[in-house]
Amino acid sequence: MSDSNFTATALVILAAGQGTRMKSDLPKVLHKVAGAPLLHHAMMSGASLAPERTVIVAGHGAEEVQDSARELDPEATAVVQEDRLGTAHATDQARGALEGFEGNVIVLYGDTPFIKPETLERMIAARGTNAVVVLGFEAADPGRYGRLAMSGEMLEKIVEFKDAKDEEKAITFCNSGVICADSKLLFELISEVGNDNASEEYYLTDVVGLARARGLPVAAVRCDEEETLGVNSRADLAAAEATFQARRRAEALAEGVTLQAPDTVWFSHDTVIGRDAVIEPNVYFGPEVTIETGAHIRAFSHLEGCHVSRGAIVGPYARLRPGAELAEDVHVGNFVEIKNAQVAEGAKVNHLTYIGDATIGEHSNIGAGTITCNYDGVFKHHTEIGARVFIGSDTMLIAPVKIGDDAMTATGSVISSDVPAGALAVARARQENKPGFAIRFMERLRALKQKKSKE
Amino acid sequence: MSDSNFTATALVILAAGQGTRMKSDLPKVLHKVAGAPLLHHAMMSGASLAPERTVIVAGHGAEEVQDSARELDPEATAVVQEDRLGTAHATDQARGALEGFEGNVIVLYGDTPFIKPETLERMIAARGTNAVVVLGFEAADPGRYGRLAMSGEMLEKIVEFKDAKDEEKAITFCNSGVICADSKLLFELISEVGNDNASEEYYLTDVVGLARARGLPVAAVRCDEEETLGVNSRADLAAAEATFQARRRAEALAEGVTLQAPDTVWFSHDTVIGRDAVIEPNVYFGPEVTIETGAHIRAFSHLEGCHVSRGAIVGPYARLRPGAELAEDVHVGNFVEIKNAQVAEGAKVNHLTYIGDATIGEHSNIGAGTITCNYDGVFKHHTEIGARVFIGSDTMLIAPVKIGDDAMTATGSVISSDVPAGALAVARARQENKPGFAIRFMERLRALKQKKSKE
Amino acid sequence: MSDSNFTATALVILAAGQGTRMKSDLPKVLHKVAGAPLLHHAMMSGASLAPERTVIVAGHGAEEVQDSARELDPEATAVVQEDRLGTAHATDQARGALEGFEGNVIVLYGDTPFIKPETLERMIAARGTNAVVVLGFEAADPGRYGRLAMSGEMLEKIVEFKDAKDEEKAITFCNSGVICADSKLLFELISEVGNDNASEEYYLTDVVGLARARGLPVAAVRCDEEETLGVNSRADLAAAEATFQARRRAEALAEGVTLQAPDTVWFSHDTVIGRDAVIEPNVYFGPEVTIETGAHIRAFSHLEGCHVSRGAIVGPYARLRPGAELAEDVHVGNFVEIKNAQVAEGAKVNHLTYIGDATIGEHSNIGAGTITCNYDGVFKHHTEIGARVFIGSDTMLIAPVKIGDDAMTATGSVISSDVPAGALAVARARQENKPGFAIRFMERLRALKQKKSKE
Repeated sequence: MSDSNFTATALVILAAGQGTRMKSDLPKVLHKVAGAPLLHHAMMSGASLAPERTVIVAGHGAEEVQDSARELDPEATAVVQEDRLGTAHATDQARGALEGFEGNVIVLYGDTPFIKPETLERMIAARGTNAVVVLGFEAADPGRYGRLAMSGEMLEKIVEFKDAKDEEKAITFCNSGVICADSKLLFELISEVGNDNASEEYYLTDVVGLARARGLPVAAVRCDEEETLGVNSRADLAAAEATFQARRRAEALAEGVTLQAPDTVWFSHDTVIGRDAVIEPNVYFGPEVTIETGAHIRAFSHLEGCHVSRGAIVGPYARLRPGAELAEDVHVGNFVEIKNAQVAEGAKVNHLTYIGDATIGEHSNIGAGTITCNYDGVFKHHTEIGARVFIGSDTMLIAPVKIGDDAMTATGSVISSDVPAGALAVARARQENKPGFAIRFMERLRALKQKKSKE
Repeated sequence: MSDSNFTATALVILAAGQGTRMKSDLPKVLHKVAGAPLLHHAMMSGASLAPERTVIVAGHGAEEVQDSARELDPEATAVVQEDRLGTAHATDQARGALEGFEGNVIVLYGDTPFIKPETLERMIAARGTNAVVVLGFEAADPGRYGRLAMSGEMLEKIVEFKDAKDEEKAITFCNSGVICADSKLLFELISEVGNDNASEEYYLTDVVGLARARGLPVAAVRCDEEETLGVNSRADLAAAEATFQARRRAEALAEGVTLQAPDTVWFSHDTVIGRDAVIEPNVYFGPEVTIETGAHIRAFSHLEGCHVSRGAIVGPYARLRPGAELAEDVHVGNFVEIKNAQVAEGAKVNHLTYIGDATIGEHSNIGAGTITCNYDGVFKHHTEIGARVFIGSDTMLIAPVKIGDDAMTATGSVISSDVPAGALAVARARQENKPGFAIRFMERLRALKQKKSKE
Repeated sequence: MSDSNFTATALVILAAGQGTRMKSDLPKVLHKVAGAPLLHHAMMSGASLAPERTVIVAGHGAEEVQDSARELDPEATAVVQEDRLGTAHATDQARGALEGFEGNVIVLYGDTPFIKPETLERMIAARGTNAVVVLGFEAADPGRYGRLAMSGEMLEKIVEFKDAKDEEKAITFCNSGVICADSKLLFELISEVGNDNASEEYYLTDVVGLARARGLPVAAVRCDEEETLGVNSRADLAAAEATFQARRRAEALAEGVTLQAPDTVWFSHDTVIGRDAVIEPNVYFGPEVTIETGAHIRAFSHLEGCHVSRGAIVGPYARLRPGAELAEDVHVGNFVEIKNAQVAEGAKVNHLTYIGDATIGEHSNIGAGTITCNYDGVFKHHTEIGARVFIGSDTMLIAPVKIGDDAMTATGSVISSDVPAGALAVARARQENKPGFAIRFMERLRALKQKKSKE
């Protein structure tokens, strides 16, 4: 990292907006798209630049914001912008945190989740021959966006809509707000930014004009308008989610995944699905799911933090929770919940079952209604089921407990101590038939009902 | 209600249309949108006027129609239109039921669910200076609608499409059918309506021309075309549902509810959801559901007639039925059904459980597979679970039964008598392991199978 | 079939395309739309012609393709096209399989699922007075389709896009590829087709020009462009599915089925639903489902291979698997799976239950958590439940087993031997309460936890 050609990068992510229109107690940048906070999306956009420092400029809920940032990057720092005096003022809050840093600073926005890593890489490349680089886009409807006033390849200045003259309003090349400059220069220019404008705000965009006034070259890199989509309301958030999902569904189809009804499958930002996997309608993928090629996820399934190997069949109505790992050809059927459990090749858990904190060996068959009783009210315990085991229906496995290879449990048994390999464990009462009892019992109840209804 | 400025209102709701295109045995106005019959939507539109009388003019299935109307307004009356001779004839059927009533009559339609209360209030206001007030809309495609022939602010007449001349067909201001007039005047004018027209029907619309012929002022109030959407087929019904849902989803977002996938959340007409509640994809709200702020409803949940308090987490795959009341921080997990039960603060019911006709105390934990056996084949009985109780997995609670505070039940127990506070209740057989049995048993079965397959 | 006016028909279905863009190991024509392989859709289009022979020209995965074809038509033959030299070459592979056949040959495509039977019947009719009949469509965007060069009612030739002159490119009447000709003539003409064109392929389309050169009349029959939709990618497949579903949903509404949210109901190609049936949102119909009039399928239900009679209520969250037959007024509730079982009139299976390989008699009530233990690890066995039986909650029925009429089982019982009519079967341990045990137990656990957390 110390070679002379290498220029370090720092990210400054502006995340202080209150998001009043969100009507939420949660800081806006912590609202999620595709299972990840908006803030993480912005950080992930910048991650391909391997930033040396990441500074989040937070306002409302700064502590929560920093905590969230550190889930993704433990070295991320949040600084607080006490007053909201404009984007230059916001960026200036990062000055202290970037003390001693030399290299490029890229300013991103915590509520703008879709900037592509390649776009930022193009900005860095353009920095080579320019003092400042701004990210712009051709706006279908320029509306109230800031306009990029170009002179050939040179960006002369950015005009805020409120301050724009009519001929400037005619410009359709607009400002995304994302900017890249040498750290030292950036903070020098920021110091020169004034607030003599319609909003009395310190605009980060003014550094462009200031750089040009020094005779420094400034470039504008273009991206798709879709990348610059920002979130200011719940409706925007839902629209961002829809944009993400549409893109991800199209990718999955292109990669050879069968989606019978793409519009009803919900991906997270990190969902990985192999070729020839079949995903039926109404499947929800929470974070950290990988599905191998040829696996089959049936309708109404809900998966989070799990791995499904090739040939496995899951659902309908299967819930795989974090730590569920299904080996090849495992079958998990309806109304089954699996959490923190390794299920080995060819094992079957087909009906109305809860498996938590457990291992299940190869080709074992878990009967309907089986429950691993992993919680004693205070601690969680582990259940170990060997290979080729036959767990009878409605077996309660009181953890910690081990069931040896080739063992069986009798239907309806509560298993509280280990079962040796090859043994049958039984814990149940003998059946007794009481002739005529049912008839008499129901007659009595019905007579009682009739009596009551007469009263 | 007797001050001199107050004018009473009566609603006449025309609901006799057979709805042949519905292909249904159910009267058309009893088909539902957003969980309520079309008829109720029309009645709810008029409810803000606090009508003194409500008369439904029914045809096919009049008794069912009246029963349904009375669910909402016990004083509503249905009258039967034996022959279908037009809207004036239909309205005239209400004459008897409005005997002695003095004030404004508003004629609504049972198959037109979206007229806004404000719209009707504007009509009432316009009645102040007009003898008759008609509700019109600017039609995107006027098609076969009746046309409102205006002369300045004065509505001169309504021309049915079949009877319209070319210059009248060019009018885009159309008749919704909704009309308001003084009761006495209205029935006088109706008596004068003839059927000398292309359809040989008595048109209610003719009262406009008749009023004008008497020199009385007639006004047209404007509403959005969407409000006048009528239902004549199942496809219309589905479209009305979609219209309702789109509007309700947008409202929820604007109010600060998080909907990851708004298009997959189904509201009822009366669903109430607090700010910062999170609703995951594929959630269905039946009638009478309230969700407090900050509650979290996970994917694939189905709620009806229930209350979910702040901080509660429900689902995925949770079904809350009428009478389920979850206090703060309650957790209800997957494949759990709760009906007619109060679950106190911090209690957990996480897996594969049926709770019906029960109370659960604070911070109690209900193990997986628990069932409240509330039905003996004739009667339903109640289960009372105290605070801080630990119900072991697969516990059967045979109601009526009480579990005292701080008590426990052992896994797999059938509890048929009360458990004192602090006690452990056990009802289960001892485990016995039979060494080698499982191996021998499976070998025998496999040998049998092989033998059979050779036969 | 031997009357002189009757002309036999043979189908040749071209199905050798590799479908590289599908990115799949499965032959393209075996990918499914509406629960049936594309190949079956093509075969079903042709089925109304009662074809005497059906020949599939397969490439990749010919054996799988033939197996699939024979599921629908046991007499179907697949032949293999080793080299891909064009559609005429592909059709020529069927020559041997049609040896001795006399009559019309229709060439269809295995990846084109939506040709209507009526369309093919119109082609056969047109064959009466024409030597060759081609199926064309008016293309909204003709793009790279072959063009049909007409001269009045006569089709003069088909011009492949690559070989088309500018004036030919202006033609919007395009070639679907489907063609019909007398068997003998077709193979004679195919022998004359050359590959002197831009792709060096043998085009089936050239038979048109060759027929015309012999002075034979050739006609073009028109169909809707939608019928000619072909599948070349997963996105196409999803689009075909969407097209099918949209059409099927509209049909269901028109037939008098209530669909609250049509876009969330998934039909198979053979789903049958009666008038006034109510289908709530998020219902999935796999193959071979019939729902009688007035049945009610609640949200989140999943049905395959089953029959639901009038007045029955299913769901929410009910899974009916192949062989589930519900008689009138049966109720199947939440988290219930039913497979290969006949459930008689008025019986109820309402909560958390697995019924497999069973019969249930009239008006029986199956308690929550009941499981038919039908599998012993090797064999499946049958459970027979009589009429008016009351199965207590959490009853395990170890098949083979019979429960007589009017019998009861006690909650939590494991029933391994038959229960006579009118008897009560009990198999459970006695409840014992251990005073103070729970309090002491939890105190000990909590103390242990505290100790551990200090360590």
